[in-house]
Amino acid sequence: MSDEDEVITEAHGAGSGQMRKLIEELAVSRFENGNAETDVPLEALDDGSVHRLANGGESVVVTTDSHVVTPLFFRGGDIGRLAVAGTVNDLAMMGATEPVALTCSLIVESGTPVKTVERVMDSMRETSVEAGAPITTGDTKVMGSGEIDTLAINTTGVGIVPQGRHVPDAGLSPGDKLIVTGTVGDHGISLLSEREGFDFEGDLESDVAPVNDLVAAAMDAGEITAMKDPTRGGLATSLNEMASKSGVGLEIDERSIPVSGAVASAGEVLGIEPLNVANEGKVVMGVEREDAEAVLEAIRTHPKGKDAAIVGEAVDEHAGRVILDTGFGNRYLTEPEGEQLPRIC
Amino acid sequence: MSDEDEVITEAHGAGSGQMRKLIEELAVSRFENGNAETDVPLEALDDGSVHRLANGGESVVVTTDSHVVTPLFFRGGDIGRLAVAGTVNDLAMMGATEPVALTCSLIVESGTPVKTVERVMDSMRETSVEAGAPITTGDTKVMGSGEIDTLAINTTGVGIVPQGRHVPDAGLSPGDKLIVTGTVGDHGISLLSEREGFDFEGDLESDVAPVNDLVAAAMDAGEITAMKDPTRGGLATSLNEMASKSGVGLEIDERSIPVSGAVASAGEVLGIEPLNVANEGKVVMGVEREDAEAVLEAIRTHPKGKDAAIVGEAVDEHAGRVILDTGFGNRYLTEPEGEQLPRIC
Repeated sequence: MSDEDEVITEAHGAGSGQMRKLIEELAVSRFENGNAETDVPLEALDDGSVHRLANGGESVVVTTDSHVVTPLFFRGGDIGRLAVAGTVNDLAMMGATEPVALTCSLIVESGTPVKTVERVMDSMRETSVEAGAPITTGDTKVMGSGEIDTLAINTTGVGIVPQGRHVPDAGLSPGDKLIVTGTVGDHGISLLSEREGFDFEGDLESDVAPVNDLVAAAMDAGEITAMKDPTRGGLATSLNEMASKSGVGLEIDERSIPVSGAVASAGEVLGIEPLNVANEGKVVMGVEREDAEAVLEAIRTHPKGKDAAIVGEAVDEHAGRVILDTGFGNRYLTEPEGEQLPRIC
Repeated sequence: MSDEDEVITEAHGAGSGQMRKLIEELAVSRFENGNAETDVPLEALDDGSVHRLANGGESVVVTTDSHVVTPLFFRGGDIGRLAVAGTVNDLAMMGATEPVALTCSLIVESGTPVKTVERVMDSMRETSVEAGAPITTGDTKVMGSGEIDTLAINTTGVGIVPQGRHVPDAGLSPGDKLIVTGTVGDHGISLLSEREGFDFEGDLESDVAPVNDLVAAAMDAGEITAMKDPTRGGLATSLNEMASKSGVGLEIDERSIPVSGAVASAGEVLGIEPLNVANEGKVVMGVEREDAEAVLEAIRTHPKGKDAAIVGEAVDEHAGRVILDTGFGNRYLTEPEGEQLPRIC
């Protein structure tokens, strides 16, 4: 139970330990409603839940995300692209790379120009076509002026996987290689730069994109044991979650993590670590050691995966911790908290 | 395309013609992405969408709703119960009475007491257990103070129906009987009374409840040809939508529509027609004529259906229109617009 006067703070929304604690207290403790047909229940706090169908052959994957971002339109994307790509990617992280249906639920502030909503809808359509993910049902609520900040979008995604073939985020075993599918930090650093009014000569933009096709190519090339898209909290948070949930240690070579020059420079100016901020078109995956090169090759030949790299591996030692080899020695890579964790969405 | 200076207004959110026009212009015109596997696409503007699975035996039903209500806690319920019941009921309206999964996506304003969120989560849990509808995945976003009004909840529901056994809202044929499962106007009139500060000696309360078990009993008792839950826009809007989508006329006997004495009186004081406001635990269904008495009996023996009544029937004439026999003559029952349509949620 909470203290009488405890309130929700922005730190609760930033995507790391404080937020997981809140979700565990508020939701998981109440809703632990998984049953015999649930392969991935709420308690798993994975990217979605997975439910076996009575037909014996298939499972349904469900994932949901509410999107709020300032500004609505940013370099490289907008809230509509973010909503569709985010949900398509969460389905893909569970192994469901061909979405059956996406929902689009809008909360719009009264007084918002119709043109603004049209631009967002156009972007949702384009991203939906790009991902092969039909938007099939929705809902619209209008709030009084001042109640919300222009526009919030919830997108929920439904997919199908063959039973037992979903990919958890907790499936790493010692020996598995870790692959990152491209440069990290682009979305977070670009958005923060734009908000702070820095231009950096236009070299920065969000990486927001659906990557379900990339994931499908990787899954075809070898055995993927665990996947996560490093959104809120960045790669540092995703690696720590995967290590902790899988009960393995991770040894990561910092120099092998792809970071663009523009992101690295802007990160230094802003005092923000690219590993700690959101990506919206990248994946970190565990791959069985003997399949690692084949999967890497499949990802690199995909246009959205040309910068992919093997960044480390899972080990028996220091279970639940991530060791970063910086080139000058080893240190723990911890989850960002508080000041290290800028609020992006 | 919209005019350069057109803006979203609260009338767009009130659940009737203006809102459907907005949704058609913004969403349906862009997202008509149904394919060969889609039994009920977005264009149908039904309570959800329906998708045939490759296994040949089952279809997935998906529905979504974002909930915003003032006050968060009201007589007879709260936003949490409203969210779970609303989504469970939308699934049931398509014939999916045993939900596979519900999502819970919160947008919370920074500064909201944790106790408030806990009360809402408690209510979601209770309603989820009552409906047998597990909440299996979710999302939480925290907005800066002043950006939203304390709390918005999106709930999306996923269900399964045998292929071809979903129930559309457009399935009425001439001769079908129309059944309303209980008193109408309770949610809307109670909430508006509370907002206006009227007490009415506590006789009013929202009817918010999951009715999937009631619907299952009705479906077991006979052939249901069409269903809708008369939420925003009330029974008047639902009847008009069913008539218009089915291409039949409806002849309704006003005196047979169940309305509680308290709702009728309060409606007169407030100047609000109970047929025009939201219900959150009622269903209007078309039933094949020969099954009507059996279905009515099954509904009435259910605790949530004791006031059910046959209110009229579908006819060949005046397709798309609803004729109301008031006892003093006939008039068209039209969809409420503008002033007649108070904004409730």
